[in-house]
Amino acid sequence: MSAEQPPFRVGLLGHGTVGAAFEELLAGRAEEIERFNGRRPMISGVLTRSQGDFEEILAGCDLLVELMGGLEPARSYLLAAIAAGKDVVTANKQLLSQHGEELFESARERGVRLRFEAAVAGVVPVVRVLEESLSATPIERIHGIVNGTTNYILSEMEKGSTYAEALAEAQSRGFAEADPSDDVTGRDAAAKMAILARLSFGSPVHLDEVRYEGIEHLQLDDLEYARELGLGLKLVGTAERRDGGLSVSVHPTFLYAGHPLASISGPFNAVTVESGGITEITMSGPGAGGPQTANAVLGDVVSVMTGGARPPAPPLPLTLVTDVQSAFYLHLDVADQPGVLAGVTKVLGEHDVSIRSVVQRGTGEGARLVMVTHPVLESGLAHAVEQLAAFDFVRSAPRTIRVIEEEFL
Amino acid sequence: MSAEQPPFRVGLLGHGTVGAAFEELLAGRAEEIERFNGRRPMISGVLTRSQGDFEEILAGCDLLVELMGGLEPARSYLLAAIAAGKDVVTANKQLLSQHGEELFESARERGVRLRFEAAVAGVVPVVRVLEESLSATPIERIHGIVNGTTNYILSEMEKGSTYAEALAEAQSRGFAEADPSDDVTGRDAAAKMAILARLSFGSPVHLDEVRYEGIEHLQLDDLEYARELGLGLKLVGTAERRDGGLSVSVHPTFLYAGHPLASISGPFNAVTVESGGITEITMSGPGAGGPQTANAVLGDVVSVMTGGARPPAPPLPLTLVTDVQSAFYLHLDVADQPGVLAGVTKVLGEHDVSIRSVVQRGTGEGARLVMVTHPVLESGLAHAVEQLAAFDFVRSAPRTIRVIEEEFL
Repeated sequence: MSAEQPPFRVGLLGHGTVGAAFEELLAGRAEEIERFNGRRPMISGVLTRSQGDFEEILAGCDLLVELMGGLEPARSYLLAAIAAGKDVVTANKQLLSQHGEELFESARERGVRLRFEAAVAGVVPVVRVLEESLSATPIERIHGIVNGTTNYILSEMEKGSTYAEALAEAQSRGFAEADPSDDVTGRDAAAKMAILARLSFGSPVHLDEVRYEGIEHLQLDDLEYARELGLGLKLVGTAERRDGGLSVSVHPTFLYAGHPLASISGPFNAVTVESGGITEITMSGPGAGGPQTANAVLGDVVSVMTGGARPPAPPLPLTLVTDVQSAFYLHLDVADQPGVLAGVTKVLGEHDVSIRSVVQRGTGEGARLVMVTHPVLESGLAHAVEQLAAFDFVRSAPRTIRVIEEEFL
Repeated sequence: MSAEQPPFRVGLLGHGTVGAAFEELLAGRAEEIERFNGRRPMISGVLTRSQGDFEEILAGCDLLVELMGGLEPARSYLLAAIAAGKDVVTANKQLLSQHGEELFESARERGVRLRFEAAVAGVVPVVRVLEESLSATPIERIHGIVNGTTNYILSEMEKGSTYAEALAEAQSRGFAEADPSDDVTGRDAAAKMAILARLSFGSPVHLDEVRYEGIEHLQLDDLEYARELGLGLKLVGTAERRDGGLSVSVHPTFLYAGHPLASISGPFNAVTVESGGITEITMSGPGAGGPQTANAVLGDVVSVMTGGARPPAPPLPLTLVTDVQSAFYLHLDVADQPGVLAGVTKVLGEHDVSIRSVVQRGTGEGARLVMVTHPVLESGLAHAVEQLAAFDFVRSAPRTIRVIEEEFL
C-alpha cells in the first residue's frame, strides 16, 4: 500500500508489569500494524527507575507512552512531552482524575493528541466510544462497574462468603492488592468516574469532587435481602445530568435483575451509557490486568499513528449537584414491640420518604425492618435516618443502600 | 477554537424513516458538533424517489450519506461518489454483505473513507471498535445477537408464547415487518455476520458464503428443556478462526447462563469479541430503530469530519471452513420400548458423538430423549441424525441445536 516509511518511534516511561507487557505486545504486533497502517511501530527508548534519560527518550520519539503511574514525575514528563509537540498515551487514572484538566488544556493548546483508553475499564473501549462514536448524541447518564476487585468481592459475597473471606480470596487470586484500600473504599472507582464524567459531559471533575462510598461496611444479610427482593448488589459509579447540573458518585447499589449491569460478575468491568437518542448501550469485559491494559495502550498508539484521534475538546463546566434523588433500601434492626412500625413510618413521612415495599423479619432480639423507598432526596433520607437512629427501639445503626429500579422496556 | 470555517456539506440519498430521522438529528446537533470540531455540518442536498438530481447532489457535497437501502441504485451511486473522491457513509447491510469488497477496494484505491457503523447492531459501536480499538489484538472469535426481531421473538417464547404468537406480538409492536422472512430465516443476521467477519479477520465474506438457519422451526419444548438444562436459547451469529481458516454461521444456539449473551433479551443486539490478549469484551444495546440508526450514521459523519477514520484495509483472504466442531442438543421423539437407548447410543458412538448428559422424559407415546453432546463435527452429527431418523422407534424428525458451553472464568 505504501512505499518504505520510517518506523513510528514510541518512547516508553515505566517498565513494570504493564510496561513490560506493552513492550512485548508491540514487538509481536508490529508487522501486522505495519501491514494495515504503512508504518511499523518500535520502542525507541525506555525509562525505568534505574536507567534511561528522559530528555533523550523524548527527543527520539514520535509518541510518548507513560506507564509509570503516580502523580510525579509522570505529570511533569507528560507536560514536557506535550510542550514539545509530541502525542502522548497514558494509563494513569490517578493523574487524569487530579490533573486531567491541566493536561487536556496543554494538549489542546499545543494541538497534540492525549489518549488514555487504558485508564478506565481496561480494554473495554469506553473512552473511545464516548469520545467518538457517541459524539453525535447528548449523553444523559453513565452507570459503571469500574473496579474489578470490588466486583469480584461482591460476587463472592453473593455466594455466601463474608467480606473478609472474599477479600482474602481476591488477594490470593491476584484480583486485590495487599493494601486494597484504594479499591474497597471506592476511591479507585471515583477516579475513573471523574474521567468518564469529563468525557461524557465535557465538565471538568476532580477526584475530590466525586462522592464515594466503599463496600467494607456491607453485611452478608444485605446481600441475602437483595436476593429475596430480586436485586443484585454492585459498586456502581454514576455520572448524570441532574437539575441542570452534574452529579458524580460511587456507591454500593442494588440493581433490579434486568439491569444490564446486574449480570456482570467476577473481576469484570462494565459501563452503561444512556441517552435519549440511543436508549442505552452497555460495554463489558475484564478489568485491568497487565495484558488487557497493554492492549488498550497499544490500541491508543495505533489510533494516533493512523490519525484516528484528535486533541481534547474544550471544557464545558457544569455545576456539581450533590443532593440527588434516589430510591433506597433501608435496613433497621428493631426491638419487636408495639408501635415500632408506626414510629418509623411517621418519621419517614415527615421527611417525604415514601415506602415502596417493606418486609418484617424475625421477632424479639433479631427483628428487622427492611424497606425499599420510592425516589427521595439523599438529604431527606439522611435526616430521617438520623432521627430513626435516635429511637430506643432501633438497636443498631440503620443501613441504607441505593437502589436502581427498572426504567427501560 | 477556530476561525470561521465553511460548513461541512452532507449529501443525503434516501429520505425514508432513517433518512428523515438523520436529517432532523443533524440539524439539532449541528451547533454542538461545530463547537467541538470547528465545522458545522449541513444537509446540502437530498435525493428522494421523486426529487433531487444525483450528479448535482454529489458535486455539491463533501460527504455522501446513502440511506436508500437495496442493491441498486445504491451501489452505483456509492461507487460514483467514491470515484469522485468523496467520503461516504452507508447503513446498507445488504449491499455491504454482497458487494462490500468492490466498495472497499474502490475506496482504498481512491483513498476515501467508507463508514458503515449503522449497518450492524444499530448504535452499538461494534464496527468502530473492531476497526480501531481492537486493531492491536488478533481476534479469535465473534459471537453476536445481531437481529433484534428474532431476539424479541425468542424472549417471548421463553415466557411461554408459541412462535406464531410471539411473531404476531413482534409485528404489533413494530419489532417485525409484515413480511418477516429476512429476519426469521436468519438471512439478515447472516448479512451482518459477513460484515463483522470482514472487519474482524480481514477476509472477504459474501452473504451467500454464510451458513445460516432461522428460528421458524423451533418448538416450545426446546425452550422448556433449555430452562431445565440451565441454558438460554438465542439466534447467535459466529465468526471464528477454525483449523487455519474462517467459519461464519448463524444458528439458534443454547448458551450457558453465565455467557455474556445469555442475558440479552427483548429487541436488543449484542456482540462478544474474544481474543487471547483481551479475553472477551461485550457490547450491547437496542437493535436498529430510526433514531438509533440515525445516531450511528451521524457518528460516522462526525468521525469523517474529524479525521477519525481511514480508508478500508486491504483484504487478507482466509479459507472458509464449513464443517466445524460444536456441542449439540439432540431431541428425539421415541417409542418407549426396550433397546431404544442402546440403539441410539450405538449409532452415536459409531459417529464419534459422545454424550455429555441425557434426560428421558415421559413414557409411551410421548417419550422423549434429550441429550447434550460433547463437541463433535457437524457432519458427524448430521450423519448420525440421518441414521437415527431411519429407526422405526424414532417417531418424528430428530431436532438438533448448537450449544455454547462455559469456557471462561
